[in-house]
This record gives sequence, structure tokens and C-alpha cells, in this order.
Amino acid sequence: MATVTLLTDAELSPEAAEVFAEIRAARGTEYVNDFWRALAHDPATLRATWDRLSAVMAPGALDPLVKEMVYLAVSTANGCAYCVHSHTTAAKAKGMDTAMHGELLAVIGMAMQTNGLVTALGVAPDAAFQVTRSD
Amino acid sequence: MATVTLLTDAELSPEAAEVFAEIRAARGTEYVNDFWRALAHDPATLRATWDRLSAVMAPGALDPLVKEMVYLAVSTANGCAYCVHSHTTAAKAKGMDTAMHGELLAVIGMAMQTNGLVTALGVAPDAAFQVTRSD
Amino acid sequence: MATVTLLTDAELSPEAAEVFAEIRAARGTEYVNDFWRALAHDPATLRATWDRLSAVMAPGALDPLVKEMVYLAVSTANGCAYCVHSHTTAAKAKGMDTAMHGELLAVIGMAMQTNGLVTALGVAPDAAFQVTRSD
Amino acid sequence: MATVTLLTDAELSPEAAEVFAEIRAARGTEYVNDFWRALAHDPATLRATWDRLSAVMAPGALDPLVKEMVYLAVSTANGCAYCVHSHTTAAKAKGMDTAMHGELLAVIGMAMQTNGLVTALGVAPDAAFQVTRSD
Amino acid sequence: MATVTLLTDAELSPEAAEVFAEIRAARGTEYVNDFWRALAHDPATLRATWDRLSAVMAPGALDPLVKEMVYLAVSTANGCAYCVHSHTTAAKAKGMDTAMHGELLAVIGMAMQTNGLVTALGVAPDAAFQVTRSD
Amino acid sequence: MATVTLLTDAELSPEAAEVFAEIRAARGTEYVNDFWRALAHDPATLRATWDRLSAVMAPGALDPLVKEMVYLAVSTANGCAYCVHSHTTAAKAKGMDTAMHGELLAVIGMAMQTNGLVTALGVAPDAAFQVTRSD
Repeated sequence: MATVTLLTDAELSPEAAEVFAEIRAARGTEYVNDFWRALAHDPATLRATWDRLSAVMAPGALDPLVKEMVYLAVSTANGCAYCVHSHTTAAKAKGMDTAMHGELLAVIGMAMQTNGLVTALGVAPDAAFQVTRSD
Repeated sequence: MATVTLLTDAELSPEAAEVFAEIRAARGTEYVNDFWRALAHDPATLRATWDRLSAVMAPGALDPLVKEMVYLAVSTANGCAYCVHSHTTAAKAKGMDTAMHGELLAVIGMAMQTNGLVTALGVAPDAAFQVTRSD
Repeated sequence: MATVTLLTDAELSPEAAEVFAEIRAARGTEYVNDFWRALAHDPATLRATWDRLSAVMAPGALDPLVKEMVYLAVSTANGCAYCVHSHTTAAKAKGMDTAMHGELLAVIGMAMQTNGLVTALGVAPDAAFQVTRSD
Repeated sequence: MATVTLLTDAELSPEAAEVFAEIRAARGTEYVNDFWRALAHDPATLRATWDRLSAVMAPGALDPLVKEMVYLAVSTANGCAYCVHSHTTAAKAKGMDTAMHGELLAVIGMAMQTNGLVTALGVAPDAAFQVTRSD
Repeated sequence: MATVTLLTDAELSPEAAEVFAEIRAARGTEYVNDFWRALAHDPATLRATWDRLSAVMAPGALDPLVKEMVYLAVSTANGCAYCVHSHTTAAKAKGMDTAMHGELLAVIGMAMQTNGLVTALGVAPDAAFQVTRSD
Repeated sequence: MATVTLLTDAELSPEAAEVFAEIRAARGTEYVNDFWRALAHDPATLRATWDRLSAVMAPGALDPLVKEMVYLAVSTANGCAYCVHSHTTAAKAKGMDTAMHGELLAVIGMAMQTNGLVTALGVAPDAAFQVTRSD
């Protein structure tokens, strides 16, 4: 089920093939997951997405596992089943164990709950939460 | 702006007052933010929310700052302005500096973008992402 | 703050004025809230929305208060602050008291929470939930 | 398809088994649906979710069927297919017939539509919807 | 998988059969997709949905292909897999080629990303974006 | 109200100042809206967002006004008030008149409504909507 075909390696444009080679090199596996095979119909967006994803998810002020868990949290709130599955797999590969997974889900559930309560209560942000020039 | 009044300390039921005392003790400040003042109309939900929040956000397999950032990510995806403001404030209080904040937002933005691309492409999760009994 | 002006009665087209008259008659008040004043720039959508809203919210197999509470629940999940405020007001006018309001919010919060947990767990609907021809 | 395995009864921890026993007793059936089998990897969240769900969905100022319909409405707006299926099943079991189901969906659809219109029009909540101290 | 059965032509009420005849005439095909077969349990909502959809999607100030792409964009943001599939099919039938599809998805992804960034930054709309009476 | 300060021109880093110069040149105005002033705390994301936005929104297989309307549609579904205001302004600047705005909102509202109905009905995409290799 998809709105476009999943391109095989043989069907890739040269530009897309180049991105696939980078994905394989970065991940150390021949396997390229179906999101990229669907996105490859548009080599420009494939390139832009891969380049930006690589930059954003690289180690920095936050470690890669924290970034994966944040990615998974956003994907959950947006109801993206594919993203939930792919980023759970990625987070486990980066060290998320059962206890961490459980706590992550508990935080997501708690946030969803209070997001709903706050919205239904219609409360405006406290003045204390406002950032001022002197911060 | 709210759909209920924000209760003053004098207007709290004894059950709500007890929760407020716990919030103040846990946070080491007299200040109780407006979400709790709105929620206090329903002491049972106030109690359940505070108890569960305290348990979920406590140090565990994930550290409290990571939990705050995940909370902020979910609140962003759900479009809860109040929650975004309150949990940004909380995350800063727990050590999120400008660089971490910037990376967090970059990950959130990236996740939102690929959530949209994946959903529009209609791709089903790869078999490789499926968890099996032997995992 | 709005993306269009809020039309005064004097600025309404004849078609829009007719709808405003029906809103006033149905509600027994001269007051017409700002949503309709913004929507009045497009008399066809104003007419279609009012007609359908009147039909959908009328007493039927479900009573009007239940419908208002469902409307409020959907508006909360969608993060529509205006709708949350207008339908909380409407629900109170139809009899929602503090206890009912509190329970409604507790259910909304609970649903938000388990929506998040289920999505993050990636569980497919049980076969037992499937409707079959013989149902 | 799931991001964790679905635990069999034999795989449950003692804490999880105790919750399963309570689910079975409360529902009067041996059948425990897959959400709980996935959640059982984290006995603390399983316990907290079941306890709070039981309290929130119990008869009170709102009757259980109304609560199920509100739950279904939120789950629909959040796009949670599992929750839509499980709570439609539950609502039918509590008395939701075809006419009620049809009206419920009509209200959900109407709310979704006006949520979108209001958001696109950018209208701020009327002063008339504001709650004041004297309310 | 559905929460109601998909009605066959033989199971339709006379009112629903009339709508199905109009769908077939308007689309020039005998095929009626499953959404309508599920919705047909409630002939009043079936009728209202079809009538409004026909009016809204007709050629006007915007051409039908633009409308389909907007429909697809909204369906993507709401995470409605069925709608994404049906409106991608419809957009292709109305002339959306691979290049247009690619650009559409790139815009959707970009919007999702900046929606997230703006929400996390908590920025209020600029005064310059406000509509005034003199506009 | 924001979670970061809005940087003045004097507070910009050299990298951010360069992006601001490009925004001003591309738009032919000295005015830089507040989203960019908030984002400027993270010059890398500022640069990446501006570069990608410029590429995605440029004339191509779809014209810039269509792209603005799609952007507005996504922003509406995601409930981003800032984005709704900024992209309505932008769409008007690119030629969206009152009739087009009205039709755009009608399509958004219709899509929201059927997104809700389809999700609540739980219908799976028809086989007829599936893309196959031979497409």
C-alpha cells in the first residue's frame, strides 16, 4: 500500500542512486527502507531530506539516542505508524532498552493527557513563562 | 482567557489544597502555575494528574531533562501553546541551554516534515521493523 | 486577530443577512458570535455550515448536550481554542455543570493518553473488534 | 505489527498478571485485548493506566455510554485506528445503536469541519465566551 | 477492517441508492468506493456529504485539480491514510503528474516542518499579518 | 509571547545576518517577520530552513500561489495560528482574492469533515487506490 511505487535500485535516477549509496555507507548496511524507495521519485526532495536528516540527527549538544526518542515522540503525536515503527527500531539500535522504552511511552502518554486537559481548560500561558529581553 | 476560573488558594477544596502543598514542596517555590489553578475545580483529576506526573517525570532509566524535552516535543506536535511555554521553561530550569534547545527544535521540525512525507506517500512499515517473538 | 475582517450587520450580503436572522431566531438572542461574522464573507459556505450544523445538533437519537460535549471533545483534540471556548459556553447553557465538565475533561485526557500509548506501541486492532457481515 | 511483542499470559510479570485478573473480573470475560498485552512490558504504566481508566470511565455525573462516545470522538480526531475500533466495539456493547452511531459520526464530522474553518479564519474567542470570577 | 459493514447495492435504503446513482452518474463509472458504502448506514449524512462535496469540489475560482491537492494536503496533515490514497488517485485522474506530485509533497513537508518550529518557538502572529477594517 | 527572544538586527550572528539579507532581497522589503527573528538563535537551522523554503516555494510544476494555498491548508490542519496568518497574508500578496479564499476554506473544511468520518468508520483504502508496478 502506497501512493507511489517503491523504486528498485535498477529504477533509480543517477541522483537518487547517489543518495542511496550515501545511506548505505552511513548505516553500514545494504538495506534501504521503503520510505526512501518511495521518496526516490523526487530526487531533489530525496537529496534535501537525506542531507538535512543526517545533519540534524548527528551527535551534537544532544546525543543521537535522545534525538531518536524525540523523533519517536513527535511521530507518535502525529499518528505516523511508519515513523513510529522505523524510529522505534532505530532507537533500539542506538541503545534504548525496555525500561527506557517504557519510560518514554509513559512521558508521551502523560504529555498527550495534559495537552488535552490544558486545551480544554483554555488556560493562557502564565506571565512567568514569558521570555524577556533580559533572559 | 479560560473555560473555568483560576482558583485562588482561598477557593481551594481541602483535597485540592493538599495537592497544591505537595506541588510547592516538590518544586521549592510558592508559585503554582495556572494549569493547576484551572484543574483544581476537579480535585480527583487534580490529584490523579499530579501523582502520575510526579511518578512519570522522576529520574529513572531516562533523566528528567530528556523527559522534559520529550514532553515539549509532544506538546509541539499537538499544538498546545501553554504546554510548549511551560515545558520550555521547565527544560531550561533543568539545564537545556541554547544549543540543546536549537537541536531539539531541529529534530522536531525534521520529524514533522518526514511524518508528512511518509503519510502522503502512504508507505507501510517495512517487514524489517516488525518485532517478533524471538526479539 | 483574524485573517478576514469580522463583518458588521451593515456589511452583510442579503444571503448572509438571511442566515444571521435564522441564527438569531434559533438562539433567541441578538448576539451573533464572531465565527459567523468571519464566515459571512462567503455566503454559500455560511449557509451550508449553518444548515448542516442545525440539522446535526438537533435533538435525535442523542440529546443536544451529549452532542455539545462530543463537539467539545473533538475541538480539544484538534487544538481549536475558539471552538473549545464556544462549545464550553454552549454546553454549559445546555446543562453541563461542574461535575459533568470535570468528568468530560477526565475522559478527554484519558483518551489522549491511551491514543498516544497505542500509537507508540503500534498495535493493530484485534480481530475481535472487526465488524463482519453477520453483525 | 507492533513495536513490542504481545505478551501471552505465561509471559506476564506477577504485577501485570494481577492487572490482567482485574481486567477479566471487571469485564466478565477471559478475553484481554492486545493493547494491554503490549502495555504489559511496563507493569507500572499498565497498572496506572488500568486504575485511572477504571475510575474515569465509571458511572458518575456522565453515564458510561456518553463517556465511550466522547472517547471515540477524541480517538477519531487523533487518528488512532486501534482506539476507534476498540471504543466503537465498547460503545456498541454499552448500547450505542445504528442511529446513535450515525449521529455521533455526524457531530464528529461537523466539529472537524468547523474546527478547520475557525482555524483558517483565525478568529479569537469572543469576549462573551470568557469565564469571569462572578460565574 | 471497518467499524461498520460495507453495504452492497442490494442492502442500500432507497435514499442511499439514490445518492449512489448520483455518484455513478457524476463520475461516469459503476465503481463506488468503500467510504460511501460505509457511510450509507446513515442516509442523511450520506446525502449531506455528497451534496456538499459536489458543490465544494466543482470548478469555481479554483480549479478542481488545485482543490484535490489541497484536499490531499489536509488529509496528510490529519493522518488519514484512506483519504490520502483516495485523493491521490483523484488528483492523478485530474492531471497531477509525477513532477506536480513531488512538488506538492515537498510543500506539505515544508509546511509541517515550519508548523513545528513556529509552535515550539511560541511566536505570536506579527501585527503586519493582522487584517484591518480598511483592507 | 515566545519561548525565545526575538532577535533584533543588532543581535544577529554574522551567519544569521546573511540569511536576513537574503530574505530582504528575495522579498523586496526591509521587513523580516518574527518567525525568522526567533529562529535566528540557531543560525544552522535558520539557514537550512530558508534555503529549503526558497527552493520548495519557487515556481515549478506548481505555481507559487497554489503552493501558498497548500501551505495554508496544512497549517490549518495542524492548528498553527502563526502560520495561518503569515501564509494567508502571503497568498493574498500572490493573488488570492476573496472568492478563492472562500473556496479554499470550503475545501479545507470539507476535507477535515471527511477525514473525521473516514477515520471513525475505520475503512481501509480500496484496492482500486493501490499503485502497482505497472502504473
